Amino acid sequence: MINPRRPSGFNEFLPNEQIAFNAMVSTIKAAYEKHGYAPIETPALELAQVLLAKEGGETAKQVYRFTKGDTDLAMRFDLTIPLARYAAEHYNDLVFPFRRYQIQEVWRAEKAQAGRFRQFYQCDIDILGSNHALADVDVLLAAHSALKSLKLNGLLFKISHRGIVNAWLEEKKLNKHATTVLRAIDKLEKIGTRAVSEELIGAGIKKAEAEEIVSFVSKSGKAKEVLQFLKEANIKNDNFKKSLESLELISESLIAGGMKPAEFIIDLSIARGFDYYTGMVFETVLVDQPKIGSVCSGGRYDNLLGQYRKDPIPGVGASIGLSRLFATIKDKLLNGPANPAQVLIIPFTKEVDGYSLEVAAILRLAGLNVLVYPNHDKISKQLGYADKLGIPAVILIGDHEKEKNIVTIKNMKSGNQKQIKRDKASSYLKKII
Amino acid sequence: MINPRRPSGFNEFLPNEQIAFNAMVSTIKAAYEKHGYAPIETPALELAQVLLAKEGGETAKQVYRFTKGDTDLAMRFDLTIPLARYAAEHYNDLVFPFRRYQIQEVWRAEKAQAGRFRQFYQCDIDILGSNHALADVDVLLAAHSALKSLKLNGLLFKISHRGIVNAWLEEKKLNKHATTVLRAIDKLEKIGTRAVSEELIGAGIKKAEAEEIVSFVSKSGKAKEVLQFLKEANIKNDNFKKSLESLELISESLIAGGMKPAEFIIDLSIARGFDYYTGMVFETVLVDQPKIGSVCSGGRYDNLLGQYRKDPIPGVGASIGLSRLFATIKDKLLNGPANPAQVLIIPFTKEVDGYSLEVAAILRLAGLNVLVYPNHDKISKQLGYADKLGIPAVILIGDHEKEKNIVTIKNMKSGNQKQIKRDKASSYLKKII
Repeated sequence: MINPRRPSGFNEFLPNEQIAFNAMVSTIKAAYEKHGYAPIETPALELAQVLLAKEGGETAKQVYRFTKGDTDLAMRFDLTIPLARYAAEHYNDLVFPFRRYQIQEVWRAEKAQAGRFRQFYQCDIDILGSNHALADVDVLLAAHSALKSLKLNGLLFKISHRGIVNAWLEEKKLNKHATTVLRAIDKLEKIGTRAVSEELIGAGIKKAEAEEIVSFVSKSGKAKEVLQFLKEANIKNDNFKKSLESLELISESLIAGGMKPAEFIIDLSIARGFDYYTGMVFETVLVDQPKIGSVCSGGRYDNLLGQYRKDPIPGVGASIGLSRLFATIKDKLLNGPANPAQVLIIPFTKEVDGYSLEVAAILRLAGLNVLVYPNHDKISKQLGYADKLGIPAVILIGDHEKEKNIVTIKNMKSGNQKQIKRDKASSYLKKII
Repeated sequence: MINPRRPSGFNEFLPNEQIAFNAMVSTIKAAYEKHGYAPIETPALELAQVLLAKEGGETAKQVYRFTKGDTDLAMRFDLTIPLARYAAEHYNDLVFPFRRYQIQEVWRAEKAQAGRFRQFYQCDIDILGSNHALADVDVLLAAHSALKSLKLNGLLFKISHRGIVNAWLEEKKLNKHATTVLRAIDKLEKIGTRAVSEELIGAGIKKAEAEEIVSFVSKSGKAKEVLQFLKEANIKNDNFKKSLESLELISESLIAGGMKPAEFIIDLSIARGFDYYTGMVFETVLVDQPKIGSVCSGGRYDNLLGQYRKDPIPGVGASIGLSRLFATIKDKLLNGPANPAQVLIIPFTKEVDGYSLEVAAILRLAGLNVLVYPNHDKISKQLGYADKLGIPAVILIGDHEKEKNIVTIKNMKSGNQKQIKRDKASSYLKKII
């Protein structure tokens, strides 16, 4: 006898959880389709030398990589590199600007700890082939719609622009420290201004400059205010001006597209760790649940396909960490049923099995989800079955019902029972479920 | 520069194919939910010693198995063993009879050849915890509904019962050859009666007996006829009687549940290769496309969980090979669009971007899928974009439209253009898309 168990870090759901998770996924899909993103999927396994072309260090260690026959394979660890490979491979068959959403699992052998999964769902949208700020706006509005459709409270988009921070550093003749600065300011919220200052000083930046940097990137607030602050900074640098214009256009367009002014801020401390970002970057938090961190983040990258293609293709994207998001909202979703059936039919004896199946077929045609109990158990056990699975209505069928061409319907919420002609059953059921 | 490519045998879809595939999956899901099956998913990776407990030979060689750290891992190669592990692991949290559907990829390192994939989708339904023929009927009716909802022509279920064949062999004192016979008769359709006879003779069965066996298992036809033939065989064996009764009940119930008599036959040559089947077994063919083989198959197994649990749990299931089925029907599905958008909005200049985003938000609220072109390209290029993606309506927005609070709608099918108040746009669009 083998102990039935899973490898550590590999989660799976009970049916009621799976139903709630699938509902969340469907809602997000619908939102992304409403914004004109097309679905794609990529294989779980890629050639290691193709997938890991640019990766090194921590990520490479976490990748599930192995050899089968002569082939060096690696499991998908994000949805961004596979998108770049996909777009480069199918370049001639795709229509640009190419807009895709992708909802699939990724695998990372992270250290096992509470709340850390080694298999989890990501949900990415990207637009490849437009360098216009309208594409940035498009991604932000679509992600906003997707998260709003989940009825999340206290949604706040924190938006910044790599160009602003880079140009400001250039202006201050600190651009040789750009990477150090971007990595350090990402930690502002976690470790605070003093610790970031110290980190910058430790990296060879003068104290006064470190403090000026921290003061600048700590700027955060309503779009209007921060944009005004940036204008008044009076930086002549072209990249600064262009980035500022883009950030202004984004702010105005988000409002035109339906976001409320209270739903986004400009926060110059948002840097995003990935080196591939080149323009707008953002994170999204739930202000009521600060511990969760960012539930959706992304930004603009202007040469992600560079490793696979000579001509650069600009892109912008957003990624929702679905498994983590679900873990934070599932409590309010899990009161739902453990089975999609709306009606359970209980045939009392084998003599009424056929009649019961006929009734089931009629009700399904009328659009109802109907489960015929696949055995002749005690009625009490079968009623308990409906109760445990959260099925709201039960139909009891014995000889009497078959003879009279009727059904007895039990409303599981009220406990009421009613006998009704079998052709009238579906409209009655639709009222009580 | 790295050549962007995939490992051999790993397929992926272009957006129009993915949209068609997803539509097929949604249709099947809806059918299974209509029959009261609940969704579950299991992890891609399982512990090798748990997943491969019973497997050996060919299957084990095809499994993607590797070590990460100290852990011996194996990728899911079917949905049946993971179901057994899942049901045994979560036994106390599940409600029996447990009914689940599962639509996920499986991985098998098969020899690469045309039409053979190393990653493909399976779609399984199973009922665990009922040994009643009603459960067999339930699975058959649900699979029938799922396949019918795909509008497949010439659907034919071929049903048999292991008990009939086994009991008949027992009666003929040939039961020691049962495994040989079951494996050989599975090949009847492929290699013909003579070759099967020869195979049986080669395995040590006498010529007359081999011919009698082949003659018996070749029996195939309308349920009524074959049931009559079996009754007239006049076999006293209890298992034969019980199996015959069950097969009769199944046949009658399928009709009561909505299957047409022309949609199924009893075919005693259906044996299914897997050793775990113990009762009813079936395959499903499209009579117009005999080359495809079985698109859906399954049967009853009474101790699949035996390797993980002491107490047996009877089960019955059906499996659709989704990727293969899709390959056979996609031609008629692929005339569809490459993007879910129903409307493309073209803002002529940056002055009308905001107005365009407002219009998009209004139309989305009205339920339409709307794509705002994320750039200011040539109009002809943008119209070509709608055309290539299969978007049926385009909205053109310039200064005039913004000033007058109207939109210009172009019907991409007819080429007609119409100017309309922006609040009236959604109802007009719904008529023309």
